[in-house]
Amino acid sequence: MKTRRYVFLVSGGGGNLRLLAKFLAFGLLEGELVGVLADRPCPALIWAQEKGIFAQQIGYRQSQPEELRQYLAQLQADLIVTNIHKIIDAQTLAQFSEAHWVNLHYSLLPAFAGLIGLAPLEAARKQQSPFFGATAHLVKEKVDAGPILAQGIFATAWQKKSTKNHIEQTFRAGGLALWAAFAQLEGQKIAEQPTSIQWENGQRICLHPCPKIPEQLQQETFWQNI
Amino acid sequence: MKTRRYVFLVSGGGGNLRLLAKFLAFGLLEGELVGVLADRPCPALIWAQEKGIFAQQIGYRQSQPEELRQYLAQLQADLIVTNIHKIIDAQTLAQFSEAHWVNLHYSLLPAFAGLIGLAPLEAARKQQSPFFGATAHLVKEKVDAGPILAQGIFATAWQKKSTKNHIEQTFRAGGLALWAAFAQLEGQKIAEQPTSIQWENGQRICLHPCPKIPEQLQQETFWQNI
Repeated sequence: MKTRRYVFLVSGGGGNLRLLAKFLAFGLLEGELVGVLADRPCPALIWAQEKGIFAQQIGYRQSQPEELRQYLAQLQADLIVTNIHKIIDAQTLAQFSEAHWVNLHYSLLPAFAGLIGLAPLEAARKQQSPFFGATAHLVKEKVDAGPILAQGIFATAWQKKSTKNHIEQTFRAGGLALWAAFAQLEGQKIAEQPTSIQWENGQRICLHPCPKIPEQLQQETFWQNI
Repeated sequence: MKTRRYVFLVSGGGGNLRLLAKFLAFGLLEGELVGVLADRPCPALIWAQEKGIFAQQIGYRQSQPEELRQYLAQLQADLIVTNIHKIIDAQTLAQFSEAHWVNLHYSLLPAFAGLIGLAPLEAARKQQSPFFGATAHLVKEKVDAGPILAQGIFATAWQKKSTKNHIEQTFRAGGLALWAAFAQLEGQKIAEQPTSIQWENGQRICLHPCPKIPEQLQQETFWQNI
């Protein structure tokens, strides 16, 4: 089997990009991160450049998809993370239909679909949602829709926990969901039951569906300095 | 403290009505079920009549709220379950603002807001949602919005479990959320952590936030013959 070729489309800080790179470096996913494409200047692009990963700012819009298509073809992308703040046009999805397009959204979709970044967390706080988390799903033309591959969820504690703590837990939920999504797409066998992870800092996340969780992801140290 | 006076607004089979009656009969909630108001002929209305509970079909519409207001005033309702297929008008909510209005929705709101009955379960199956459940929330003018009081959630198994099994688990999640919502409104102290309940049939539900779960609710027999 040929090596999986990951391409990461990015707009922002690159936390999940660095996490994907770490999954690959630790052998928690197979494959290779072959390119990072950003739709604007952003820290993620700088990080990739510094790491010597192919990194390119492109002018993607739905009406101007040529540059994205050109780089996806050139990079021979077959696992594509679409965490840019743009919706991928249907024709590009169709043209690269043999690739798996995965989006990570910070909410328990379809709740708070369409909100960007951490806006769903704020909306959840307003409604006092008892549970929050992140969703990795296959990309369809409609924003934040498409079959769900994995969710990482946790019980909220709006009165007791700080926003910073909730953000950190959301990031871990997202990272786990992204890992579980790609682990499934790589063909790892799914566990019968959801998996609950609790770290030394007391944070707890339930991940479903997912393959057997690697030991590293359950260690507090894995999540530091990302 | 005066006895809490529950009024149940209903449209359908009355499963949650019978469950509320059972919570009260077992002393799991304080108060008294003083009336059942239905916006159409339905099994729930017949059940209430047979039990000797005040039961009345009313002609509620947002534009014709008089009959509902008349009965709520007459029954001195202060805990109102709004499981009718009609949205309560803002003026009626304002007129009885000292009462707690609670709605039970079969989904992890705000996901699938606006869908009725078990339609959200079917929508969740289509999107392969890893988690499903039910939400008890305070009623605002907008449908399925308002602060959430409690959610009962469970991990789905779309490939392995029957629709019947998922429906049954959704019903239990809803019953628990309804209990947790009213237990909070009655002033019972909330547990620090979410509570996980597993029954003999293997079904498992996580409830949050909630007071300490009574022993009866954890027994398989409680949920039979409702």
